[in-house]
Amino acid sequence: MPLDRMKLYEWTASPNSRRVRIYLAEKGLKIPTVPVNLDAKEQFSPEYTAINPRRVVPTLVLEDGTAIGEVLAIWRYLEETHPTPPLIGSTPKEKAVAIMWERRAEQEGFAPVMDAMRNSTPGLRGRALTGAYNYEQIPELARRSVRRVADFYTDLDLRLKDDAFVAGDRFTIADITALVTVDFATRAINQPIPSGHDNLTRWYDTVAARPSAKA
Amino acid sequence: MPLDRMKLYEWTASPNSRRVRIYLAEKGLKIPTVPVNLDAKEQFSPEYTAINPRRVVPTLVLEDGTAIGEVLAIWRYLEETHPTPPLIGSTPKEKAVAIMWERRAEQEGFAPVMDAMRNSTPGLRGRALTGAYNYEQIPELARRSVRRVADFYTDLDLRLKDDAFVAGDRFTIADITALVTVDFATRAINQPIPSGHDNLTRWYDTVAARPSAKA
Repeated sequence: MPLDRMKLYEWTASPNSRRVRIYLAEKGLKIPTVPVNLDAKEQFSPEYTAINPRRVVPTLVLEDGTAIGEVLAIWRYLEETHPTPPLIGSTPKEKAVAIMWERRAEQEGFAPVMDAMRNSTPGLRGRALTGAYNYEQIPELARRSVRRVADFYTDLDLRLKDDAFVAGDRFTIADITALVTVDFATRAINQPIPSGHDNLTRWYDTVAARPSAKA
Repeated sequence: MPLDRMKLYEWTASPNSRRVRIYLAEKGLKIPTVPVNLDAKEQFSPEYTAINPRRVVPTLVLEDGTAIGEVLAIWRYLEETHPTPPLIGSTPKEKAVAIMWERRAEQEGFAPVMDAMRNSTPGLRGRALTGAYNYEQIPELARRSVRRVADFYTDLDLRLKDDAFVAGDRFTIADITALVTVDFATRAINQPIPSGHDNLTRWYDTVAARPSAKA
Protein backbone atom coordinates (compact mmCIF):
# COMPACT_ATOMS: atom_id res chain seq x y z
CA MET A 1 0.00 0.00 0.00
CA PRO A 2 1.62 3.31 -1.06
CA LEU A 3 2.45 5.53 1.89
CA ASP A 4 1.11 8.62 0.15
CA ARG A 5 -2.38 7.09 0.15
CA MET A 6 -2.34 6.82 3.93
CA LYS A 7 -3.08 9.55 6.46
CA LEU A 8 -1.47 10.03 9.83
CA TYR A 9 -3.75 11.98 12.17
CA GLU A 10 -1.52 13.60 14.76
CA TRP A 11 -0.62 16.77 16.62
CA THR A 12 2.79 18.40 16.93
CA ALA A 13 2.75 18.83 20.71
CA SER A 14 1.47 15.30 21.39
CA PRO A 15 4.16 13.03 22.87
CA ASN A 16 2.45 9.93 21.47
CA SER A 17 2.46 11.52 18.01
CA ARG A 18 6.17 12.16 18.43
CA ARG A 19 6.78 8.48 19.13
CA VAL A 20 5.46 7.76 15.63
CA ARG A 21 7.27 10.71 14.01
CA ILE A 22 10.65 9.59 15.38
CA TYR A 23 9.95 6.06 14.14
CA LEU A 24 9.15 7.35 10.64
CA ALA A 25 12.29 9.52 10.61
CA GLU A 26 14.45 6.54 11.60
CA LYS A 27 12.92 4.53 8.75
CA GLY A 28 13.13 7.39 6.28
CA LEU A 29 9.39 7.13 5.60
CA LYS A 30 6.98 9.95 4.83
CA ILE A 31 3.21 9.74 5.33
CA PRO A 32 0.82 12.67 4.71
CA THR A 33 -0.29 14.08 8.06
CA VAL A 34 -3.62 15.54 9.13
CA PRO A 35 -3.41 17.81 12.19
CA VAL A 36 -5.85 17.12 15.01
CA ASN A 37 -5.72 20.30 17.06
CA LEU A 38 -5.83 19.15 20.67
CA ASP A 39 -5.80 22.76 21.91
CA ALA A 40 -9.07 23.28 20.01
CA LYS A 41 -10.32 19.87 21.26
CA GLU A 42 -10.68 18.60 17.70
CA GLN A 43 -10.18 15.04 18.94
CA PHE A 44 -13.78 15.18 20.24
CA SER A 45 -15.29 16.07 16.86
CA PRO A 46 -17.74 13.52 15.42
CA GLU A 47 -15.40 13.09 12.44
CA TYR A 48 -12.39 12.17 14.53
CA THR A 49 -14.38 10.13 17.05
CA ALA A 50 -15.56 7.97 14.15
CA ILE A 51 -11.91 7.37 13.25
CA ASN A 52 -10.67 6.83 16.79
CA PRO A 53 -13.27 6.02 19.47
CA ARG A 54 -10.65 6.61 22.19
CA ARG A 55 -10.37 10.22 20.94
CA VAL A 56 -6.59 10.20 21.11
CA VAL A 57 -3.84 10.84 18.59
CA PRO A 58 -2.14 9.46 16.62
CA THR A 59 -4.20 7.32 14.25
CA LEU A 60 -2.94 5.85 10.98
CA VAL A 61 -5.68 5.52 8.35
CA LEU A 62 -4.92 3.14 5.50
CA GLU A 63 -6.06 3.58 1.91
CA ASP A 64 -9.00 1.22 2.46
CA GLY A 65 -10.16 3.28 5.44
CA THR A 66 -8.89 0.96 8.17
CA ALA A 67 -8.07 3.11 11.20
CA ILE A 68 -5.14 1.94 13.29
CA GLY A 69 -4.95 3.61 16.69
CA GLU A 70 -2.37 3.04 19.45
CA VAL A 71 1.29 3.75 18.82
CA LEU A 72 2.29 0.12 19.25
CA ALA A 73 -0.19 -0.98 16.57
CA ILE A 74 0.94 1.75 14.14
CA TRP A 75 4.56 0.74 14.62
CA ARG A 76 3.63 -2.89 14.06
CA TYR A 77 1.90 -2.15 10.77
CA LEU A 78 4.82 -0.07 9.52
CA GLU A 79 7.44 -2.58 10.70
CA GLU A 80 5.64 -5.44 8.88
CA THR A 81 5.43 -3.46 5.66
CA HIS A 82 8.82 -1.69 5.92
CA PRO A 83 11.12 -4.01 7.89
CA THR A 84 14.39 -2.19 7.13
CA PRO A 85 16.13 -0.91 9.18
CA PRO A 86 14.63 -3.05 11.95
CA LEU A 87 13.40 -1.01 14.94
CA ILE A 88 11.64 -3.91 16.70
CA GLY A 89 14.41 -6.50 16.31
CA SER A 90 15.08 -9.03 13.55
CA THR A 91 14.75 -12.48 15.12
CA PRO A 92 11.83 -13.73 17.24
CA LYS A 93 13.99 -13.32 20.34
CA GLU A 94 15.08 -9.78 19.45
CA LYS A 95 11.50 -8.81 18.65
CA ALA A 96 10.25 -10.08 22.00
CA VAL A 97 13.06 -8.34 23.91
CA ALA A 98 12.38 -5.03 22.13
CA ILE A 99 8.65 -5.32 22.89
CA MET A 100 9.44 -6.11 26.54
CA TRP A 101 11.70 -3.10 27.12
CA GLU A 102 9.45 -0.75 25.18
CA ARG A 103 6.51 -1.77 27.32
CA ARG A 104 8.49 -1.29 30.53
CA ALA A 105 9.52 2.19 29.41
CA GLU A 106 5.93 2.97 28.55
CA GLN A 107 4.34 1.55 31.70
CA GLU A 108 6.96 2.71 34.21
CA GLY A 109 8.05 5.96 32.54
CA PHE A 110 5.72 7.38 29.95
CA ALA A 111 2.44 6.48 31.71
CA PRO A 112 3.49 7.96 35.10
CA VAL A 113 4.57 11.22 33.40
CA MET A 114 1.15 11.36 31.73
CA ASP A 115 -0.61 10.66 35.05
CA ALA A 116 1.46 13.27 36.89
CA MET A 117 0.69 15.88 34.24
CA ARG A 118 -3.01 15.17 33.73
CA ASN A 119 -3.79 14.90 37.45
CA SER A 120 -2.16 18.24 38.29
CA THR A 121 -2.56 20.62 35.33
CA PRO A 122 -5.29 23.20 36.13
CA GLY A 123 -6.50 23.23 32.52
CA LEU A 124 -7.23 19.50 32.69
CA ARG A 125 -9.60 19.55 35.67
CA GLY A 126 -12.27 16.94 35.05
CA ARG A 127 -10.11 15.44 32.29
CA ALA A 128 -7.61 13.38 34.28
CA LEU A 129 -7.70 10.70 31.61
CA THR A 130 -7.79 10.93 27.84
CA GLY A 131 -10.74 9.31 26.15
CA ALA A 132 -14.51 9.47 25.98
CA TYR A 133 -15.23 9.87 29.68
CA ASN A 134 -14.59 12.64 32.18
CA TYR A 135 -12.74 11.78 35.38
CA GLU A 136 -11.73 14.18 38.12
CA GLN A 137 -8.07 14.69 38.93
CA ILE A 138 -6.55 12.90 41.92
CA PRO A 139 -3.75 15.08 43.34
CA GLU A 140 -2.35 12.17 45.35
CA LEU A 141 -1.99 10.19 42.13
CA ALA A 142 -0.02 13.07 40.60
CA ARG A 143 2.35 13.01 43.59
CA ARG A 144 2.75 9.24 43.44
CA SER A 145 3.45 9.45 39.73
CA VAL A 146 6.26 11.95 40.27
CA ARG A 147 7.87 9.43 42.61
CA ARG A 148 7.40 6.72 39.99
CA VAL A 149 9.19 8.81 37.36
CA ALA A 150 12.13 9.21 39.75
CA ASP A 151 12.19 5.44 40.29
CA PHE A 152 12.02 4.92 36.51
CA TYR A 153 15.10 7.10 36.06
CA THR A 154 16.96 5.10 38.69
CA ASP A 155 16.05 1.78 37.09
CA LEU A 156 16.86 2.95 33.56
CA ASP A 157 20.24 4.30 34.67
CA LEU A 158 21.09 0.86 36.03
CA ARG A 159 19.73 -0.82 32.91
CA LEU A 160 22.03 1.30 30.71
CA LYS A 161 25.14 0.46 32.70
CA ASP A 162 26.13 -2.43 30.42
CA ASP A 163 24.08 -1.87 27.28
CA ALA A 164 24.27 0.99 24.80
CA PHE A 165 20.52 1.08 24.22
CA VAL A 166 17.41 0.29 26.25
CA ALA A 167 16.77 -3.10 24.60
CA GLY A 168 20.41 -4.06 23.99
CA ASP A 169 23.06 -3.07 21.48
CA ARG A 170 20.76 -1.56 18.86
CA PHE A 171 18.43 1.42 18.72
CA THR A 172 14.79 0.22 18.95
CA ILE A 173 11.29 1.43 19.76
CA ALA A 174 12.27 1.09 23.44
CA ASP A 175 14.69 4.00 22.94
CA ILE A 176 12.03 6.03 21.19
CA THR A 177 9.60 5.68 24.09
CA ALA A 178 12.31 6.34 26.69
CA LEU A 179 13.56 9.45 24.84
CA VAL A 180 10.05 10.86 24.46
CA THR A 181 9.42 10.10 28.13
CA VAL A 182 12.48 12.09 29.28
CA ASP A 183 11.58 15.09 27.12
CA PHE A 184 7.92 14.89 28.16
CA ALA A 185 8.87 14.74 31.84
CA THR A 186 11.26 17.66 31.43
CA ARG A 187 8.75 19.85 29.65
CA ALA A 188 5.42 18.89 31.23
CA ILE A 189 6.27 18.20 34.87
CA ASN A 190 9.71 19.81 35.19
CA GLN A 191 11.38 16.52 36.01
CA PRO A 192 14.55 16.13 33.93
CA ILE A 193 17.11 13.37 34.44
CA PRO A 194 18.63 13.99 37.90
CA SER A 195 22.35 14.59 38.16
CA GLY A 196 24.38 11.50 39.00
CA HIS A 197 22.53 9.23 36.58
CA ASP A 198 25.59 9.05 34.34
CA ASN A 199 24.59 6.03 32.23
CA LEU A 200 21.18 7.50 31.55
CA THR A 201 22.68 10.88 30.67
CA ARG A 202 25.21 9.29 28.30
CA TRP A 203 22.40 7.36 26.58
CA TYR A 204 20.17 10.45 26.41
CA ASP A 205 22.90 12.55 24.80
CA THR A 206 23.43 9.84 22.18
CA VAL A 207 19.80 9.29 21.20
CA ALA A 208 18.83 12.98 21.42
CA ALA A 209 21.63 13.74 18.94
CA ARG A 210 20.15 11.45 16.28
CA PRO A 211 18.47 13.43 13.49
CA SER A 212 15.18 11.60 14.21
CA ALA A 213 14.95 13.26 17.62
CA LYS A 214 13.98 16.52 15.91
CA ALA A 215 10.82 14.93 14.56
CA MET B 1 14.10 -23.92 20.02
CA PRO B 2 12.27 -26.90 21.56
CA LEU B 3 9.48 -25.87 23.89
CA ASP B 4 10.49 -28.42 26.52
CA ARG B 5 13.79 -26.59 26.98
CA MET B 6 12.00 -23.39 27.94
CA LYS B 7 10.55 -22.49 31.31
CA LEU B 8 7.43 -20.48 31.98
CA TYR B 9 7.55 -18.86 35.41
CA GLU B 10 3.97 -18.23 36.45
CA TRP B 11 1.35 -18.58 39.16
CA THR B 12 -2.09 -20.18 38.91
CA ALA B 13 -4.03 -17.31 40.47
CA SER B 14 -2.25 -14.60 38.45
CA PRO B 15 -4.49 -13.09 35.75
CA ASN B 16 -1.45 -12.16 33.65
CA SER B 17 -0.24 -15.76 33.83
CA ARG B 18 -3.69 -16.86 32.68
CA ARG B 19 -3.40 -14.64 29.59
CA VAL B 20 -0.38 -16.74 28.56
CA ARG B 21 -1.97 -20.06 29.57
CA ILE B 22 -5.06 -19.41 27.42
CA TYR B 23 -2.80 -18.46 24.50
CA LEU B 24 -0.84 -21.70 24.85
CA ALA B 25 -4.05 -23.74 25.05
CA GLU B 26 -5.40 -22.10 21.88
CA LYS B 27 -2.13 -22.96 20.10
CA GLY B 28 -1.95 -26.46 21.55
CA LEU B 29 1.52 -25.74 22.96
CA LYS B 30 3.00 -27.05 26.19
CA ILE B 31 5.90 -25.40 28.04
CA PRO B 32 7.25 -26.64 31.39
CA THR B 33 6.10 -24.28 34.14
CA VAL B 34 7.84 -23.14 37.30
CA PRO B 35 5.50 -21.85 40.00
CA VAL B 36 6.32 -18.47 41.53
CA ASN B 37 4.23 -18.44 44.68
CA LEU B 38 2.90 -14.90 44.95
CA ASP B 39 1.17 -15.70 48.25
CA ALA B 40 4.62 -16.53 49.68
CA LYS B 41 6.09 -13.43 47.94
CA GLU B 42 8.49 -15.59 45.94
CA GLN B 43 8.57 -12.93 43.20
CA PHE B 44 10.83 -10.87 45.49
CA SER B 45 13.45 -13.61 45.89
CA PRO B 46 16.92 -12.77 44.57
CA GLU B 47 16.60 -15.68 42.12
CA TYR B 48 13.40 -14.42 40.56
CA THR B 49 14.41 -10.76 40.67
CA ALA B 50 17.45 -11.69 38.60
CA ILE B 51 15.09 -13.20 36.01
CA ASN B 52 12.51 -10.45 36.08
CA PRO B 53 13.56 -7.07 37.57
CA ARG B 54 9.90 -5.95 37.61
CA ARG B 55 9.20 -8.86 39.99
CA VAL B 56 6.02 -9.84 38.18
CA VAL B 57 4.82 -13.04 36.56
CA PRO B 58 4.81 -14.47 33.97
CA THR B 59 8.32 -14.70 32.51
CA LEU B 60 9.33 -17.00 29.67
CA VAL B 61 12.95 -18.16 29.92
CA LEU B 62 14.45 -19.53 26.71
CA GLU B 63 17.01 -22.32 26.48
CA ASP B 64 19.86 -19.79 26.20
CA GLY B 65 18.73 -18.05 29.38
CA THR B 66 17.05 -15.05 27.73
CA ALA B 67 14.25 -13.91 30.03
CA ILE B 68 11.18 -12.51 28.30
CA GLY B 69 8.86 -10.64 30.62
CA GLU B 70 5.58 -8.89 29.77
CA VAL B 71 2.67 -10.87 28.36
CA LEU B 72 2.75 -9.02 25.05
CA ALA B 73 6.41 -9.90 24.52
CA ILE B 74 5.86 -13.56 25.43
CA TRP B 75 2.96 -13.75 22.98
CA ARG B 76 5.11 -12.13 20.30
CA TYR B 77 7.90 -14.65 20.72
CA LEU B 78 5.50 -17.58 20.59
CA GLU B 79 3.55 -16.17 17.62
CA GLU B 80 6.76 -15.68 15.63
CA THR B 81 7.93 -19.22 16.32
CA HIS B 82 4.49 -20.92 16.17
CA PRO B 83 2.34 -18.86 13.80
CA THR B 84 -0.52 -21.38 13.41
CA PRO B 85 -3.32 -20.87 14.25
CA PRO B 86 -2.79 -17.10 14.14
CA LEU B 87 -3.89 -15.33 17.32
CA ILE B 88 -2.43 -11.91 16.39
CA GLY B 89 -3.71 -11.77 12.80
CA SER B 90 -2.14 -12.97 9.56
CA THR B 91 -1.60 -9.86 7.41
CA PRO B 92 0.13 -6.63 8.49
CA LYS B 93 -3.28 -4.97 8.76
CA GLU B 94 -4.82 -7.78 10.80
CA LYS B 95 -1.79 -7.84 13.07
CA ALA B 96 -2.03 -4.11 13.74
CA VAL B 97 -5.79 -4.28 14.37
CA ALA B 98 -5.36 -7.17 16.82
CA ILE B 99 -2.60 -5.27 18.67
CA MET B 100 -4.79 -2.15 18.79
CA TRP B 101 -7.83 -3.86 20.30
CA GLU B 102 -5.76 -5.94 22.70
CA ARG B 103 -4.11 -2.78 23.98
CA ARG B 104 -7.43 -1.01 24.42
CA ALA B 105 -8.79 -3.98 26.38
CA GLU B 106 -5.67 -3.99 28.51
CA GLN B 107 -5.48 -0.25 29.13
CA GLU B 108 -9.21 0.42 29.58
CA GLY B 109 -10.25 -2.88 31.16
CA PHE B 110 -7.51 -5.00 32.64
CA ALA B 111 -5.43 -2.13 34.09
CA PRO B 112 -8.39 -0.44 35.84
CA VAL B 113 -9.42 -3.76 37.41
CA MET B 114 -5.87 -4.15 38.68
CA ASP B 115 -5.85 -0.57 40.02
CA ALA B 116 -9.22 -1.01 41.71
CA MET B 117 -8.10 -4.23 43.37
CA ARG B 118 -4.61 -3.16 44.43
CA ASN B 119 -5.71 0.22 45.79
CA SER B 120 -8.48 -1.26 47.96
CA THR B 121 -7.41 -4.72 49.16
CA PRO B 122 -6.35 -4.54 52.85
CA GLY B 123 -3.60 -7.12 52.35
CA LEU B 124 -1.96 -4.89 49.71
CA ARG B 125 -1.49 -1.77 51.87
CA GLY B 126 1.78 -0.16 50.82
CA ARG B 127 1.82 -2.33 47.70
CA ALA B 128 -0.57 -0.43 45.42
CA LEU B 129 1.63 -1.24 42.44
CA THR B 130 3.48 -4.39 41.50
CA GLY B 131 7.22 -4.05 41.08
CA ALA B 132 10.31 -3.14 43.02
CA TYR B 133 8.97 -0.10 44.86
CA ASN B 134 6.38 0.33 47.58
CA TYR B 135 3.58 2.82 46.97
CA GLU B 136 0.68 3.54 49.30
CA GLN B 137 -2.86 2.83 48.21
CA ILE B 138 -5.04 5.69 46.92
CA PRO B 139 -8.68 4.90 47.77
CA GLU B 140 -9.94 7.56 45.36
CA LEU B 141 -8.05 5.83 42.55
CA ALA B 142 -9.78 2.56 43.45
CA ARG B 143 -13.16 4.31 43.19
CA ARG B 144 -12.27 5.94 39.87
CA SER B 145 -11.07 2.59 38.53
CA VAL B 146 -14.41 0.93 39.36
CA ARG B 147 -16.11 3.61 37.24
CA ARG B 148 -13.62 2.98 34.45
CA VAL B 149 -14.42 -0.74 34.44
CA ALA B 150 -18.13 0.11 34.08
CA ASP B 151 -17.29 2.40 31.15
CA PHE B 152 -15.14 -0.34 29.62
CA TYR B 153 -18.09 -2.74 29.75
CA THR B 154 -20.30 -0.16 28.04
CA ASP B 155 -17.76 0.47 25.28
CA LEU B 156 -17.05 -3.21 24.71
CA ASP B 157 -20.76 -4.02 24.51
CA LEU B 158 -21.09 -1.45 21.72
CA ARG B 159 -17.94 -2.74 20.04
CA LEU B 160 -19.38 -6.28 19.94
CA LYS B 161 -22.65 -5.21 18.35
CA ASP B 162 -21.45 -5.91 14.81
CA ASP B 163 -18.40 -8.12 15.27
CA ALA B 164 -18.21 -11.62 16.72
CA PHE B 165 -14.89 -10.99 18.45
CA VAL B 166 -13.11 -8.00 19.98
CA ALA B 167 -10.74 -7.45 17.04
CA GLY B 168 -13.12 -8.57 14.26
CA ASP B 169 -14.37 -11.90 12.99
CA ARG B 170 -11.66 -14.10 14.50
CA PHE B 171 -10.58 -15.00 18.03
CA THR B 172 -7.35 -13.11 18.91
CA ILE B 173 -5.25 -11.97 21.86
CA ALA B 174 -7.77 -9.13 22.27
CA ASP B 175 -10.38 -11.71 23.28
CA ILE B 176 -7.96 -13.35 25.69
CA THR B 177 -7.29 -10.07 27.51
CA ALA B 178 -10.98 -9.12 27.53
CA LEU B 179 -12.03 -12.54 28.85
CA VAL B 180 -9.41 -12.50 31.60
CA THR B 181 -10.47 -8.94 32.46
CA VAL B 182 -14.13 -9.94 32.95
CA ASP B 183 -13.23 -12.92 35.13
CA PHE B 184 -10.69 -10.85 37.09
CA ALA B 185 -13.24 -8.07 37.67
CA THR B 186 -15.89 -10.59 38.73
CA ARG B 187 -13.61 -12.38 41.17
CA ALA B 188 -11.38 -9.60 42.54
CA ILE B 189 -13.66 -6.56 42.70
CA ASN B 190 -17.11 -8.16 42.44
CA GLN B 191 -17.88 -6.35 39.21
CA PRO B 192 -19.32 -8.81 36.68
CA ILE B 193 -20.84 -7.79 33.33
CA PRO B 194 -23.95 -5.75 34.19
CA SER B 195 -27.32 -6.96 32.94
CA GLY B 196 -28.45 -5.33 29.70
CA HIS B 197 -25.07 -5.64 27.99
CA ASP B 198 -26.41 -8.28 25.63
CA ASN B 199 -23.63 -8.18 23.02
CA LEU B 200 -20.96 -8.44 25.67
CA THR B 201 -22.79 -11.29 27.40
CA ARG B 202 -23.20 -13.19 24.12
CA TRP B 203 -19.48 -12.77 23.38
CA TYR B 204 -18.49 -13.78 26.92
CA ASP B 205 -20.59 -16.95 26.80
CA THR B 206 -18.91 -17.89 23.52
CA VAL B 207 -15.30 -17.31 24.54
CA ALA B 208 -15.74 -18.67 28.07
CA ALA B 209 -17.03 -21.92 26.53
CA ARG B 210 -13.82 -22.49 24.56
CA PRO B 211 -11.68 -25.24 26.12
CA SER B 212 -8.80 -22.72 26.46
CA ALA B 213 -10.78 -20.71 29.01
CA LYS B 214 -10.15 -23.44 31.59
CA ALA B 215 -6.41 -22.79 31.40
